[in-house]
Amino acid sequence: MFLAQRRLCSLESRAKFLKTIYSSKILGLPTSAKMSLKITNAKRIEGLDSNVWIEFTKLAADPSVVNLGQGLPDISPPIYVKEELSKIAAIDSLNQYTRGFGHPSLVKALSCLYEKIYQKQINPNKEILVTVGAYGSLFNTIQGLIDEGDEVIVIVPFYDCYEPMVRMAGATPVFIPLRPKPVDGKKWSSSDWTLDPQELASKFNSKTKAIILNTPHNPIGKVYTKEELQVIADLCIKYDTLCISDEVYEWLVYTGNKHVKIATFPGMWERTITIGSAGKTFSVTGWKLGWSIGPNHLIKHLQTVQQNTVYTCATPLQEALAQAFWIDIKRMDDPECYFNSLPKELEVKRDRMIHLLESLGLKPIVPDGGYFIIADVSLLDADLSDMKDSNEPYDYKFVKWMTKNKKLSAIPVSAFCNAETKLQFEKFVRFCFIKKDSTLDAAEEIIKGWNRQKS
Amino acid sequence: MFLAQRRLCSLESRAKFLKTIYSSKILGLPTSAKMSLKITNAKRIEGLDSNVWIEFTKLAADPSVVNLGQGLPDISPPIYVKEELSKIAAIDSLNQYTRGFGHPSLVKALSCLYEKIYQKQINPNKEILVTVGAYGSLFNTIQGLIDEGDEVIVIVPFYDCYEPMVRMAGATPVFIPLRPKPVDGKKWSSSDWTLDPQELASKFNSKTKAIILNTPHNPIGKVYTKEELQVIADLCIKYDTLCISDEVYEWLVYTGNKHVKIATFPGMWERTITIGSAGKTFSVTGWKLGWSIGPNHLIKHLQTVQQNTVYTCATPLQEALAQAFWIDIKRMDDPECYFNSLPKELEVKRDRMIHLLESLGLKPIVPDGGYFIIADVSLLDADLSDMKDSNEPYDYKFVKWMTKNKKLSAIPVSAFCNAETKLQFEKFVRFCFIKKDSTLDAAEEIIKGWNRQKS
Repeated sequence: MFLAQRRLCSLESRAKFLKTIYSSKILGLPTSAKMSLKITNAKRIEGLDSNVWIEFTKLAADPSVVNLGQGLPDISPPIYVKEELSKIAAIDSLNQYTRGFGHPSLVKALSCLYEKIYQKQINPNKEILVTVGAYGSLFNTIQGLIDEGDEVIVIVPFYDCYEPMVRMAGATPVFIPLRPKPVDGKKWSSSDWTLDPQELASKFNSKTKAIILNTPHNPIGKVYTKEELQVIADLCIKYDTLCISDEVYEWLVYTGNKHVKIATFPGMWERTITIGSAGKTFSVTGWKLGWSIGPNHLIKHLQTVQQNTVYTCATPLQEALAQAFWIDIKRMDDPECYFNSLPKELEVKRDRMIHLLESLGLKPIVPDGGYFIIADVSLLDADLSDMKDSNEPYDYKFVKWMTKNKKLSAIPVSAFCNAETKLQFEKFVRFCFIKKDSTLDAAEEIIKGWNRQKS
Repeated sequence: MFLAQRRLCSLESRAKFLKTIYSSKILGLPTSAKMSLKITNAKRIEGLDSNVWIEFTKLAADPSVVNLGQGLPDISPPIYVKEELSKIAAIDSLNQYTRGFGHPSLVKALSCLYEKIYQKQINPNKEILVTVGAYGSLFNTIQGLIDEGDEVIVIVPFYDCYEPMVRMAGATPVFIPLRPKPVDGKKWSSSDWTLDPQELASKFNSKTKAIILNTPHNPIGKVYTKEELQVIADLCIKYDTLCISDEVYEWLVYTGNKHVKIATFPGMWERTITIGSAGKTFSVTGWKLGWSIGPNHLIKHLQTVQQNTVYTCATPLQEALAQAFWIDIKRMDDPECYFNSLPKELEVKRDRMIHLLESLGLKPIVPDGGYFIIADVSLLDADLSDMKDSNEPYDYKFVKWMTKNKKLSAIPVSAFCNAETKLQFEKFVRFCFIKKDSTLDAAEEIIKGWNRQKS
């Protein structure tokens, strides 16, 4: 009786709602939206649908555009990496499911590699989880360890998925910007951008569940020093906080700099998930393989997320990656080892791109790591009056203008900021330099032409 | 002042908690668990860590065991599928990121294929989402459309991830079993297992957000008829409910049966997400590619989940899959087309396995689709007194006993049940028959030996 009554009430209010919805015909809503009252998105994804990559990748798809936008290498991946995949594709059993938490030969290779770096034993089955890219590692970590109501410290600018991932977990991102030091005419380096220790300490409290660290940093290219990491480690320990350390560019560090893993600091292994990427390590971003490394008492929760989201990663790619790792693990002190040769190759490209941007009158921030350069493009005084959407940040309009008028694309840095800090970064644009010489030649031609127009 | 006070309170309560934790030393908790109070799993994954595949795959890993457990083909995938991957691995650009919601050539191929089947236009970019396996499609659908407090109807037995995925979304699964009809000595068929329409109707109410359908059904092999699907469709429309239709075995349907898509029923396209799988379609489970098809007003929410979880799927596998699809799309009426030849090949294996199980004195349920057979193994009267964990369901103990003593592995059907219905199915065990002849020969040898021991 009570149930029937409730049903009636609910039907009444549905009829009322129906009327409202149907009357919205003039608004041109799709029929489907009018038909269903219940079938809408889950609240957890409300407002999380915009994405910089989708918009700007579409823009750069025009083949006449030189694309320095998305972090997508157009250099060739190592020949042995591609050959391993070609060979493995022919093996029947390697086209079938493998172990859910990581293909056995891959977790073995990863443990062998990282044992050298961490200088400690790493259990391949309990302390490593292979994921669908570093993206999948971030997701598993956040869903497995972050609860509704938790706070997560995010350093601005940040790789753009950090914020929606934290929000999708029902947690609150707490932002702190990297702040630039004045450089008085010297070259501006990524190391001139630092966290203020007092400001950082003020962000920690009893609700702080985690801090997301990214070193080498995207998009600034900052490689955190040991001293800088110690400040973060001390706060993590003081406030009993997790550290989610996104280290996908770990091998891409340039002369005079050294990548340091915060998980190797005293008291930090127990509270750190370190994230790596096959795409960044071997220049095969399309393989979508990454990994999380950490203590079993944390990794086991990431495993639980994985087994209820994708269950397992692609077998042929995992086996090919394992074989590629064995080749380079055996020659880590050799300059030919890809972990050593790729940063050497990229440093030349970085320097070339810095000169190019300087020739245009910009003051690019020289990155110590990664494969991006950011520069304040407001110095170019571009006439953006044609760009329609006046509500967009300056850098969005600039990149659209540059793509259309100069046939050169990049990524606006405010895409890596929360709403409140966009203003601080909206004059900056990110250029990707993991590009073959012919692509950089084409960029040079564009920039030279641009210079001629200016003078 | 207030904040400082709260901090103090919180420190006090932490100290109290610390004392409790440290006193648990005698329980042998790992040091890490004792060190941190805050660093625990998120509530959403509480209790979702057990998984039948992990346990039983480990058990069957012994090379002397004939593995009829996991749904893992040991037949060769089509040669052109493997060759496409080998070729594509050599192409630089196909080793880099592609479009996040599906590689352009793959969504094109999928739309072309399914337009033939649905007899309607399908927009490749707006009505299709490529995912990390069908598993990824299920996850995106549930996270994108199901809210905390919603109810989701799940038909028992069910592919085991449905329940934890629904729970991870904070929703309540509402279970309804398939019930067997008496068969009086005739062969038992999967079509003898049906839903009671009254019982099904009683599960729907205003909180019901979705029903998860699986046809052809795993593990029973049931292929829902048009009439059975109409009952479900009518209820979905009446209660304004989503239908999540897991159709990964869509091509694997045997003589006398036809796979019908509920999304093609009047009023159902608008409320149905249909899920398919490359692993099941081309016998490459290790590729971990699947897809969701549905109206844009639903697919767009799944896309939002995807862009905040894995962002994109592996490019070389997507391109190889697209090429494989084009080969078979062009010859769909040809018996050589894999969509036609694989079910023919499997039907012979099904019949062989049925005979084998019957020779052992079992009454297997003849599946109309899929590649599994279930059978009530309690008829074998195995002596399970050796099996240690007496709290486990009968089928768990039986499979462990059979794996150890007969070197034959399978999967317990109660793994596909919720806690309350396990008893109804715990006498059943699932055998996978997508196996090469030599594997089936080995199973036959085991069963013949078993028969000799019995007689």
